Amino acid sequence: MEFSKRVLNMQASPIRKLIPYAEQAKKMGKTVLHLNIGQPDLETPKAFFDYIEKHNPEIISYTHSAGLIELREAFSKYYKDNNIPFTPEEIIVTNGGSEAIIFALGAIADPGDEIIVIEPFYANYKGFAEMINVKLVPVRALPETGYAVPSINEFEAVLSNRTKGIIFSNPSNPTGAVYSEEELKTIVEFAKKHDLYIISDEVYREFTFDGTKHISTMAFGEYNRTIVVDSISKRYSACGARVGVFATKNRELYNQVMKMAQSRLCPPMIAQLGTIGLLEMDKSYIESVYKEYDKRRLAVYEELSKIEGAVFEKPKGAFYVSVKLPVDNSEKFVKWLLTDFSIENTTVMVAPLNGFYATPNTGMQEIRIAYVLNSEKLRFATKILAEAVKVYNNGRVIS
Amino acid sequence: MEFSKRVLNMQASPIRKLIPYAEQAKKMGKTVLHLNIGQPDLETPKAFFDYIEKHNPEIISYTHSAGLIELREAFSKYYKDNNIPFTPEEIIVTNGGSEAIIFALGAIADPGDEIIVIEPFYANYKGFAEMINVKLVPVRALPETGYAVPSINEFEAVLSNRTKGIIFSNPSNPTGAVYSEEELKTIVEFAKKHDLYIISDEVYREFTFDGTKHISTMAFGEYNRTIVVDSISKRYSACGARVGVFATKNRELYNQVMKMAQSRLCPPMIAQLGTIGLLEMDKSYIESVYKEYDKRRLAVYEELSKIEGAVFEKPKGAFYVSVKLPVDNSEKFVKWLLTDFSIENTTVMVAPLNGFYATPNTGMQEIRIAYVLNSEKLRFATKILAEAVKVYNNGRVIS
Repeated sequence: MEFSKRVLNMQASPIRKLIPYAEQAKKMGKTVLHLNIGQPDLETPKAFFDYIEKHNPEIISYTHSAGLIELREAFSKYYKDNNIPFTPEEIIVTNGGSEAIIFALGAIADPGDEIIVIEPFYANYKGFAEMINVKLVPVRALPETGYAVPSINEFEAVLSNRTKGIIFSNPSNPTGAVYSEEELKTIVEFAKKHDLYIISDEVYREFTFDGTKHISTMAFGEYNRTIVVDSISKRYSACGARVGVFATKNRELYNQVMKMAQSRLCPPMIAQLGTIGLLEMDKSYIESVYKEYDKRRLAVYEELSKIEGAVFEKPKGAFYVSVKLPVDNSEKFVKWLLTDFSIENTTVMVAPLNGFYATPNTGMQEIRIAYVLNSEKLRFATKILAEAVKVYNNGRVIS
Repeated sequence: MEFSKRVLNMQASPIRKLIPYAEQAKKMGKTVLHLNIGQPDLETPKAFFDYIEKHNPEIISYTHSAGLIELREAFSKYYKDNNIPFTPEEIIVTNGGSEAIIFALGAIADPGDEIIVIEPFYANYKGFAEMINVKLVPVRALPETGYAVPSINEFEAVLSNRTKGIIFSNPSNPTGAVYSEEELKTIVEFAKKHDLYIISDEVYREFTFDGTKHISTMAFGEYNRTIVVDSISKRYSACGARVGVFATKNRELYNQVMKMAQSRLCPPMIAQLGTIGLLEMDKSYIESVYKEYDKRRLAVYEELSKIEGAVFEKPKGAFYVSVKLPVDNSEKFVKWLLTDFSIENTTVMVAPLNGFYATPNTGMQEIRIAYVLNSEKLRFATKILAEAVKVYNNGRVIS
């Protein structure tokens, strides 16, 4: 039996494909500190379950395909509190941010059409695009500039008559960059000039540090071309809830996307209820989470700074930092960490960054660290990494 | 701003597009009995919430992309109890049956490839296929034969070098037909002869009446070409949980689909937990639900039989019956029911069947009734329908 080219072309998740090595390490009795996946260790607020219990539905029925109106109202309030003027009628609740991205790509691009993406980018963009035969065309951000938005010339250079839009995440997964007003203007002006959509993935909106502030792409007023993708996964440590958002003020685009939303019926009802509980929580929750991530960020930064030859800037947002390491090949290095290295019988797992690029053989020395463990563990993990770089480079590598 | 052809070609849900007329009727003070959507009125078993409460997770984290192993084990046991030999490693838990169908189509067909479908069919197949640019090629089942599987010649007639598989639901939504061993053999032999995949949607497995028995397509042993699509939505009155299943014994196909599953991370965790509770329930639950639907089925059948000129067979499965009515245009008739007809200030909403066909202008006199209300309400609703047909046909129609 044959398979579709679409699925054959799809790569295995770059984050998940090294898991067998981690499992093997654990079998050998090693402790593995996981900094490879954006799964926070923080408890999900009880408000989630409390709301479900209070509203304990008799029938777990289909909801409106755009999501429960009470939930869309709660999201609308949340956005307005963040100076993003979405009404409930401009919001479609999705199966995580994942589905919001598929909806966005699907509504604006046909097979063979192109979407420009700032690389390195959230690796699953690739899978979503391949699923519906849309081509991602990369514009490269560099570790030497803290992964800043490339110049407009670089965007112009990859434009074609099949380009339909631009997608990026800000704050950035995997780099931890937070885009300035100037940088965002580059993107918005380019999109305006060539009449392109902007898919703005703002999942890490709350996590911007050192006095930087997240600016939503909505702030530029280009309402007809702007799509915001969002998710509660990281903000509330509720990755498994699968509640995301597709939002736009472009009414006709909204109606088109609703056709896709209707065919899959609705997002998960119980998690929708729980999310209302989360959104109704006091702001002090987000503040405490923010402080915790900031502490972790500084811990990782401090330890990373001790690695001679590592290229990176102090991360400003999300809970990631991408680093160019002085190693020959970061995927080989990450495997080696799992198979051949440990301190106090403990090793660390990070994500090789190559899988976050669309350009082949790029980011071969880079890794992504997700700071999703407490500061103490993070310091230890980063020290292991620092020591590992030294050992790996002293020729004591078993390949 | 322009939209993709893919989304422009997508039709609005044929079930949902008449909702504004129903809303208007309610505003005018009419009661509307909804037989238009497969949303059961039965309570979701408390076992769902009990299991969640008992296992009350601290973090709502990502699960395995194929679903929690405990859930896949519970599904495997359920399938084995139904003589369908799926192991946990052959099961991928999905966002409802919807996602399982998208995965199946996506893994076997590229843009422009063709999938044969027995029409009338579950209307959302169309949306899923359009989402990923796959072409549905219909073979028609007729109300006069109780919507039996067409002859092998009819399948042969639509075969092309781009045909990759066949999709159908059994028991059938929207017709209520249950396919015999002979009928299924037609499909399986055709698939074998031309090396096609079979996507067997068995969501209504438990609901077969009058001594008929559901035969899974897996019973024919064509393991490499058989994909089973399933869902807990109807069985447990849990449509909003969004828990479905993609299952196959074809290992390589499974691995290919896992790449799609990994990019969307995981199905909803809380609903996965609840589903374990549902699957662990005593069989007496399904038996009681079965009896209730059987009672309803007989009530609808009895009342429908009183409509002179209506063409249909006694439905044998699922909780639907499709009927050819002696009206000029069933969509017009359904609208008229909502805008111009009532008995005791009550009217009824059913689904025009045209939207369940891929062939244009087909099923123009047919409707689908979902028997998702109690017998008493159903009898009243069907009597309204019977009376409406008479009035509509006596020329007292306001168009």
